[in-house]
Amino acid sequence: MWPHIRHLTSCHLGAVFSFTVLGVLIARPAVAQSTSRAVLPASIHGGEAVGPAAIELGKALFFDPRLSADGTISCNSCHNVMGGGADGRPVSAGVRGQHGQRSAPTVWNAADLSVLFWDGRAATLEEQAKGPLVNPVEMGNADLGAVAARLKRIPGYVAMFRQAFLHGGDAVTGDHAVQAIAAFERTLVTRGSAYDRYVGGDKRALSPEAQRGLALVGSLGCTGCHSGSNFAGPKLPQGTGFYQRFPTYKDNAHVAKYHLADDLGRYTATKRDEDKHMWRVPTWRNVALTAPYFHNGAVATLEEAVRVMAKVQLNKDLKDDETRAIVAFLGGLTGPFPALTLPRLPATPGASVIRVSAGMGAH
Amino acid sequence: MWPHIRHLTSCHLGAVFSFTVLGVLIARPAVAQSTSRAVLPASIHGGEAVGPAAIELGKALFFDPRLSADGTISCNSCHNVMGGGADGRPVSAGVRGQHGQRSAPTVWNAADLSVLFWDGRAATLEEQAKGPLVNPVEMGNADLGAVAARLKRIPGYVAMFRQAFLHGGDAVTGDHAVQAIAAFERTLVTRGSAYDRYVGGDKRALSPEAQRGLALVGSLGCTGCHSGSNFAGPKLPQGTGFYQRFPTYKDNAHVAKYHLADDLGRYTATKRDEDKHMWRVPTWRNVALTAPYFHNGAVATLEEAVRVMAKVQLNKDLKDDETRAIVAFLGGLTGPFPALTLPRLPATPGASVIRVSAGMGAH
Repeated sequence: MWPHIRHLTSCHLGAVFSFTVLGVLIARPAVAQSTSRAVLPASIHGGEAVGPAAIELGKALFFDPRLSADGTISCNSCHNVMGGGADGRPVSAGVRGQHGQRSAPTVWNAADLSVLFWDGRAATLEEQAKGPLVNPVEMGNADLGAVAARLKRIPGYVAMFRQAFLHGGDAVTGDHAVQAIAAFERTLVTRGSAYDRYVGGDKRALSPEAQRGLALVGSLGCTGCHSGSNFAGPKLPQGTGFYQRFPTYKDNAHVAKYHLADDLGRYTATKRDEDKHMWRVPTWRNVALTAPYFHNGAVATLEEAVRVMAKVQLNKDLKDDETRAIVAFLGGLTGPFPALTLPRLPATPGASVIRVSAGMGAH
Repeated sequence: MWPHIRHLTSCHLGAVFSFTVLGVLIARPAVAQSTSRAVLPASIHGGEAVGPAAIELGKALFFDPRLSADGTISCNSCHNVMGGGADGRPVSAGVRGQHGQRSAPTVWNAADLSVLFWDGRAATLEEQAKGPLVNPVEMGNADLGAVAARLKRIPGYVAMFRQAFLHGGDAVTGDHAVQAIAAFERTLVTRGSAYDRYVGGDKRALSPEAQRGLALVGSLGCTGCHSGSNFAGPKLPQGTGFYQRFPTYKDNAHVAKYHLADDLGRYTATKRDEDKHMWRVPTWRNVALTAPYFHNGAVATLEEAVRVMAKVQLNKDLKDDETRAIVAFLGGLTGPFPALTLPRLPATPGASVIRVSAGMGAH
């Protein structure tokens, strides 16, 4: 965790600010400046050493709509870190009014995933970050080179890339861009939720109903897949995914109603028959904030998602009080979220602005 | 200035962080909590007393794309406070891939404007904020009631509105929403630029070239209109605009090339003949960050904007070194920008998500 990232809970907003700042100053050593060459431990990134300057660069890139072909979509548009790390939509809105076909997964705690995307087709955060950049219905760039070429025309970015990667003239590359974005994303971690405090010994951190929910997800069998500290399966080597069949019990009304078997899942990435309807197990952390649910965003509420999962995966019909208890437990996995200072985005030189045709309306 | 807003310059990014945090702790009294009922001095807002909770609410609303009809456009989309307070585009992108016809003005220091919009058709920040919300090509809401109805379905916002406005069940109104947004916008002030430091006695704050530019904008006549601390005209009572004719000298190549006389300006709001081609004088503060230029965003660079203004307003042909000097001076009016902590946006209850049709692409 970095000193410019402070923890606050979604329910306290401004109120905790002065305490957390003070807490940071007391608890943390002096911050490594972005001008320093201090590097993070090699173990927390995929390859080339990256430091605070790369994280700052990655934060700017993450929030910058100029990463998209028409200058309207940033990483944060679909993975909004002001909320649950997704966009609250069944499927995301991309450039030129287009839409995807799978629901944006949360970016919170994505650093802990051993494979990325719903179908696990990316082995690292760096590889994942490339996907939306060149997806025609998301950010719409022809290739990574087009992104790099656009960033090279922004002098402030050239300076930031050089500082982050200690390179000369070729610092602004697509690979460096995704490395920086991934470095920032690795700071997007939530720990210290009510559940974590409960496990740490504070037995009042979870309500009796949530504690019952915790017991139920074990006894019903949910944690057979949703295991581990992220409730997203066991910790596996980076690039090795924990996949499960979904839906397991296809012959019920939920599957038809919510089109849960229409998408072939991991098969779309591998074209291997055994991967049909196999999916990466998504995390439960912050799940209360990421409605709507499932890979197609077809289920609107967490209550219904819990009911559907019990039926289509375990062939169990939950009683309403069981559903409520599980939802209460899942709510205990929300946050706390590190407070983030908005980046300053370097100015576009006038000659390089993205031009569009004028329509109606007036400022 | 509020304790959660710290100053940093665009050229120092992460590096100044620890110093500014420390500076805040040393220099500022204990922060007014968002749970307190402390109010700002009545003089800084338009009417109803608003306090820190209203500013926090306004910040959340400012960044929240759910204020738009399709959930894709926030205030910050076009008035990006991570940059120069505008969007770096000739005209802005609105909902459903639509575009406006005038260039988004900066939100930085908008609190100092006595009228808003290019044509001065709004007398207050509150009134201005209503415009994009219900403009069909911007945020696309049918009316303010539609916005309030959407926000009412988000329990976190209901709580924030009640806290900010100390109301009961009817706290979530369109009027309160724009009051909160305006309260946040009144914190978006830049003072302490190189120019301010120069005026304050630090004669080395501006380069010799910028000092020459400062002299030139006086001797050429630019500051006849661009006067006052914001270089946007004299301080006038709220609701009274400082308008000037543009272009004054219509018979030159610039006017034709950049279509500078196509838009009738304030006339479009008043339909009075004397208001044809009259425009609110825009601020010079942060102008180096808000390319492209003029009401239609037709001029890409600040150099060209300076040349064009001298010709079409003063009928003067600047020498290149004069243009460069003025541009250097204008660059001395950039920032510093208060550091802003990202708001936490309250979660949308699952049943109220904005639904869209699915297209191609996959997460």
